[in-house]
Amino acid sequence: MAENKKIPYKMYLEENEIPTRWYNVRADMKNKPFPLVNPGTGKPMTAEELTPVFCDELVQQELDNDTPYFDIPQEIQDYYKTYRPSPLVRAYNLEKALGTPAHIYYKFEGNNTSGSHKLNSASAQAYYAKKQGLKGVTTETGAGQWGTALSMACAYFGLDCKVFMVKVSYEQKPFRREVMRTYGATVTPSPSMETNIGRKINAEYPGTTGSLGCAISEAVEVAVSSDGYRYVLGSVLNQVLLHQSVIGLEAKAACDKFGIEPDIIIGCAGGGSNLGGLIAPFMGEKLRGEKDYRIIAVEPASCPSFTRGVYAYDFCDTGMITPLAKMYTLGSGFIPSANHAGGLRFHGMSPVLSQLYHDGYMEAVAVEQTAVFEAAEQFARVEGILPAPESSHAIKAAIDEALKCKETGEEKNILFGLTGTGYFDLVAYQQFNDGTMTDTIPTDEDLAASIATLPKVE
Amino acid sequence: MAENKKIPYKMYLEENEIPTRWYNVRADMKNKPFPLVNPGTGKPMTAEELTPVFCDELVQQELDNDTPYFDIPQEIQDYYKTYRPSPLVRAYNLEKALGTPAHIYYKFEGNNTSGSHKLNSASAQAYYAKKQGLKGVTTETGAGQWGTALSMACAYFGLDCKVFMVKVSYEQKPFRREVMRTYGATVTPSPSMETNIGRKINAEYPGTTGSLGCAISEAVEVAVSSDGYRYVLGSVLNQVLLHQSVIGLEAKAACDKFGIEPDIIIGCAGGGSNLGGLIAPFMGEKLRGEKDYRIIAVEPASCPSFTRGVYAYDFCDTGMITPLAKMYTLGSGFIPSANHAGGLRFHGMSPVLSQLYHDGYMEAVAVEQTAVFEAAEQFARVEGILPAPESSHAIKAAIDEALKCKETGEEKNILFGLTGTGYFDLVAYQQFNDGTMTDTIPTDEDLAASIATLPKVE
Repeated sequence: MAENKKIPYKMYLEENEIPTRWYNVRADMKNKPFPLVNPGTGKPMTAEELTPVFCDELVQQELDNDTPYFDIPQEIQDYYKTYRPSPLVRAYNLEKALGTPAHIYYKFEGNNTSGSHKLNSASAQAYYAKKQGLKGVTTETGAGQWGTALSMACAYFGLDCKVFMVKVSYEQKPFRREVMRTYGATVTPSPSMETNIGRKINAEYPGTTGSLGCAISEAVEVAVSSDGYRYVLGSVLNQVLLHQSVIGLEAKAACDKFGIEPDIIIGCAGGGSNLGGLIAPFMGEKLRGEKDYRIIAVEPASCPSFTRGVYAYDFCDTGMITPLAKMYTLGSGFIPSANHAGGLRFHGMSPVLSQLYHDGYMEAVAVEQTAVFEAAEQFARVEGILPAPESSHAIKAAIDEALKCKETGEEKNILFGLTGTGYFDLVAYQQFNDGTMTDTIPTDEDLAASIATLPKVE
Repeated sequence: MAENKKIPYKMYLEENEIPTRWYNVRADMKNKPFPLVNPGTGKPMTAEELTPVFCDELVQQELDNDTPYFDIPQEIQDYYKTYRPSPLVRAYNLEKALGTPAHIYYKFEGNNTSGSHKLNSASAQAYYAKKQGLKGVTTETGAGQWGTALSMACAYFGLDCKVFMVKVSYEQKPFRREVMRTYGATVTPSPSMETNIGRKINAEYPGTTGSLGCAISEAVEVAVSSDGYRYVLGSVLNQVLLHQSVIGLEAKAACDKFGIEPDIIIGCAGGGSNLGGLIAPFMGEKLRGEKDYRIIAVEPASCPSFTRGVYAYDFCDTGMITPLAKMYTLGSGFIPSANHAGGLRFHGMSPVLSQLYHDGYMEAVAVEQTAVFEAAEQFARVEGILPAPESSHAIKAAIDEALKCKETGEEKNILFGLTGTGYFDLVAYQQFNDGTMTDTIPTDEDLAASIATLPKVE
């Protein structure tokens, strides 16, 4: 469907058009996402059980399946103004390079120092921690996007920030570490000698380079055992999707302002924070029967939770210390091949998105790594922006859809989420430039083995 | 002077408000900048002598001291739309942190993948090379901002790009190198074995890690000895200041739109491309006697060409193969201390800015490195953006002026140029975070010795 206005390359909303409320898609879901479950009791986690770990208001947001809108506190709105609105971009040059009649749009969330959309939830979580009178927060980070975003938000709100960074990343990504330190965060390589679990793992596996699961365990241990600290998480949780709805609300406001009607909406999917945020208001319309959109989740073929996983209760971490979530999962013991670059390595998927996918409201595709980097390179050369490997999964799917339009001659509007920049992922680009990048797809046997480890839940 | 409108955090012009003409400040200068001189003949370089090195249209721009405006070709305007307009930002959070009554604004040029303002001239130079039917361009790069910008522009316009990268940077900044390669550039560590000068230097100084002067010599040699290639340069030249005037024109348009009257305009100064671009239209008003502005160039105390140099003819490179330029210079043999981070290492200064400074139209201050990084850290924590070390010189001076306003109670409007981001300068931030960063100021004896090597020109 063609637009009815002259569309500029970059569409920025005015400051007073930035959303002032988050949208909670759960309110419009007929089948609600399944609750988190206490692995000890087998019963849904209560607010009481969650408050030692998460901030009080965030617990309420996590459990609220009914309230459709949450006002964004003024302090968070003020913070959003320092890096939002993010542009909605018409990919004129990519369209021309592909020779497609499709119109391609992307919502670019990488125009801030953390380099990704993660800042939208980091600022909310830091604000609520400060409001509760806490001293600080703890978290883990792998590739570093989340840790960087949280460091920035904590610097702004005046909160201590302790980041456990997977040791191999701490050593191989010193620049990410230095950004966090510049923002005043303490960055500790995990496993460390500062926690019981860290000391235990270091003793059992001398010389280990760590894992995200172990870093989560350390961050949670420090949060629950320190006065005035809570743990924060950058994806998967319902509260994170709520905060990230600002992406979709802003994208929709820009589409409405410029008379754009998306036909297809595409986002990369790891834990689901970006995809859930981008699609939120569009999915709301679809759930309420007001509009129809094709919505496509794009995941790496090396970590295919939607396309090859099962919908079941599972641990959120490899260490099996977190609550259980019902989600599409490959089993908490699944670890993507080491040659898989960037993020999107999580074995599971947001419970909200899992239920929506289960109910047929969205599709999923898995794409291979070298094809993703080919798309990234093509995009970078014509559109200018060097995309993050994660975001490039969405680029690949958008290009595929645009090429289908070229075959059929359809002038569809394709909207995708460009979640971030690739400035700190250049080791992967180097492998691609050198021709040494490879694809690895897990075998059916591998997946069956890790899925067999799922916990039993009634 | 207070503004007459509610000022948002970020001010973006509309796409149709992006400047369509560059402004040539030389047209309004009573005392024109001195011409480039052929070191062999001692006479001004003619267009004929310059065309084997530079593209034809760029030579015309270089020599034209009279035409006030040059239309920006539509193709370059289209490219500008992919990353411009850049935001003019009101630094509300910095003002609050400083407790100053001053209003602080910055024009942020780092919101593109090259991470700096260099793209404004790279795209122009690549376009003219393509228009002339050339195959490609050659250049040198040190820290890598310029090489990255040129690679991006060449990828867009379909031009081969050969970058000679100072060997020590090539090895220590592999990420910069990979960005350039992703955009299709050939990146060669300098000194290489591909040129006569490279082979000679490698033979004379086995194991040398290179210098910018040597990289320039290699790039020029390849340009003049290859069919269909020209050499391009990212700063110092009159043509570069002309292209960079888009920064100032856009900043001025935003100021006019939002009713902002700057009292003080501040920019960091290395070769002068950013400062010259930012101040261009404001300086034009000042030269024509229409308005008055305090204009401040900020340079590093470790490379103080304005504040401690002499105004004289000198070579533009350490290899003494380029034409001579009359400029404020420390002598082409001057090399800033190795502990000086980032750019702003050039021994001289744009001839245009040199003449304006000589004639009293602008001031200059030199600031020390650790104070610059303290300002950078404060800025990053409250304003979000992690600034480039170069840009942070301007931040430091802007903070100093804002603090003077705090003492006097004056509500001045301070505008500074935030030329780029620090994502690829994290080794310097690490030194700062570790407390191992130091200041080095050249002694009077050192400067006298390097200034004593100036060539003799009538």
